[in-house]
Amino acid sequence: MPKATLRDVAERSGFSITTVSHVLNDVPGKRIPEATRERVRAAAAELAYTPNRLAQGLRLRRTNTLGFISDHIATSPHAGQTILGAQDAAADYDCLLLLMNSGSDAELENREIQALRDRQVDGIIYAAEYHRVLTPPAALAGVPAVLLDARPADAGFSSIVPDEVGGAATAVKELIDHGHRRIGFVTNITDIPATALRLAGFKKALKTAHRHFSRALVVEDISEAHGGFRAARVLLDRQPADRPTALFCFNDRMAMGAYQAAAECGLRIPEDVSIVGFDNQELIAASLRPGLTTVALPHYQMGQWAVHALMRTVEGSANGSLRSEVMPCPIVRRGSVGPPPRS
Amino acid sequence: MPKATLRDVAERSGFSITTVSHVLNDVPGKRIPEATRERVRAAAAELAYTPNRLAQGLRLRRTNTLGFISDHIATSPHAGQTILGAQDAAADYDCLLLLMNSGSDAELENREIQALRDRQVDGIIYAAEYHRVLTPPAALAGVPAVLLDARPADAGFSSIVPDEVGGAATAVKELIDHGHRRIGFVTNITDIPATALRLAGFKKALKTAHRHFSRALVVEDISEAHGGFRAARVLLDRQPADRPTALFCFNDRMAMGAYQAAAECGLRIPEDVSIVGFDNQELIAASLRPGLTTVALPHYQMGQWAVHALMRTVEGSANGSLRSEVMPCPIVRRGSVGPPPRS
Repeated sequence: MPKATLRDVAERSGFSITTVSHVLNDVPGKRIPEATRERVRAAAAELAYTPNRLAQGLRLRRTNTLGFISDHIATSPHAGQTILGAQDAAADYDCLLLLMNSGSDAELENREIQALRDRQVDGIIYAAEYHRVLTPPAALAGVPAVLLDARPADAGFSSIVPDEVGGAATAVKELIDHGHRRIGFVTNITDIPATALRLAGFKKALKTAHRHFSRALVVEDISEAHGGFRAARVLLDRQPADRPTALFCFNDRMAMGAYQAAAECGLRIPEDVSIVGFDNQELIAASLRPGLTTVALPHYQMGQWAVHALMRTVEGSANGSLRSEVMPCPIVRRGSVGPPPRS
Repeated sequence: MPKATLRDVAERSGFSITTVSHVLNDVPGKRIPEATRERVRAAAAELAYTPNRLAQGLRLRRTNTLGFISDHIATSPHAGQTILGAQDAAADYDCLLLLMNSGSDAELENREIQALRDRQVDGIIYAAEYHRVLTPPAALAGVPAVLLDARPADAGFSSIVPDEVGGAATAVKELIDHGHRRIGFVTNITDIPATALRLAGFKKALKTAHRHFSRALVVEDISEAHGGFRAARVLLDRQPADRPTALFCFNDRMAMGAYQAAAECGLRIPEDVSIVGFDNQELIAASLRPGLTTVALPHYQMGQWAVHALMRTVEGSANGSLRSEVMPCPIVRRGSVGPPPRS
């Protein structure tokens, strides 16, 4: 005789599978008459029903834990707020967050995803340290999952990334609104989505303001302070008539280098040159003197969004409706932008 | 004769405990040369080593996962290398690291520890974002656990913290060795262990070099760039005869403020004033111009140590032998220290 199932107990007792499940699993807080409970238990005993613990975990009972797997977020200084946002949102669902860090090691990542699945997490957030286009690992197949700060190369996953174009346009508009006409772009030389998208935003803001885009005002280098210093020197060493009166920098680290370049050129910020960054990396942006006006990567909000999207899938209310969200990057004003110097 | 332990076999054979453990437990998937295996087995035979049955019994029920619970490490820019060190060490034991972040919320922390225990982690690392003295949560009772960057208020746990005194003394000695006699200390106003211990290290280095300690050369402020700027201004605004020729700063953020103060005072680094930081927070120390000479907090090494200490407990080889380790803080030389200016 095949093993009795919950469905068999339901049929024998005459109650719904849900009721039978609630009784046999002693789910608290359910108002089920004692007579019903007795009939269900009697039917279960007659059929020698024993619960399938695995199925129980899968079907009836969530573990109220979400997996959060990332390449480097937990170990890098850049995107920790993502975890905080996800954690706070998870608390809304009474869920805990189990974090794993793969260090971009594909084999380790697979073992970690398997470990999360073994522990029956209700779903998994797959998060990148910075905006990437990627092919999610096969190990994610069949478990509710959402991509964070990453877009899938193919469809198949909901995902959220920052609005790089809009953020860059916001930064440049801030400079245009202060009256700047010659705006330099100190940007990243690496071929990642943010590089192309922030350049697109730079051009977009100029176009909106009916300004010409000049390739001569764009200088690329590595996206660190040293690269920012070198690129900014290229722009600020020019004769005053050709020198930009403002710099938009690819990130706050390059902006830190631009501050150093301005100081070596004897230019004050913002009196002689205005500077805007990108990322709102507090450790730098709030520590520079004057404070750096920049555009915030919405790490916290992306973490929140990812959990809400994941829970919609877990709760079955979003089957088949994948979403690709782009999260706005708001400006954070400090003290590095002023009107252009009078020439 | 006391029973031989895995450590004894390791010492006799000349291989690591990990390797010995892998050989004697026939852990699959390990590429260990046959010659090594033979030497390990020979050493075990010579010592009449028999595995600890209790430990082995536990081992059979191991999940090969370690819990790593911290207040803020995963979400802050400061101590991510701790996780990396722990993860790399865990890999030596074929273990995965399950991270949880409590945000210093005691109730959440309890739920997280319980969640880790429910998932039958083999042990738990309880990690603080910065050196603290604390009372470990009751939920840790009865599970192998180690404190990281924290000391227990009472005994009962192995723990590792950085050598704050030695690190500060190393930093100040670097300045003394370059010929500085008037060394200022830009320090933290908050009452945390690092504040008292780094001051002790400052005094210790002076005493070793037979120099007087002068309270007038110590200025306290908040441990961020703004605080460092203000405190450094107090010292650098003095007349040249009273002005320190070098500053030791409580951390790299305060040192960043000291750079700004020096610039505003028209003082070059290191020609006019030398500066040493503490923490080796790459994002700042490597980005400053010139690069900041500083003392490294050994986050990575502390993470490794904690896992090894935890595994000794898990494997039953450290019953009753709690260890309180203090990890050295080595100097990282960049470009901010030179000889004092000729007066």
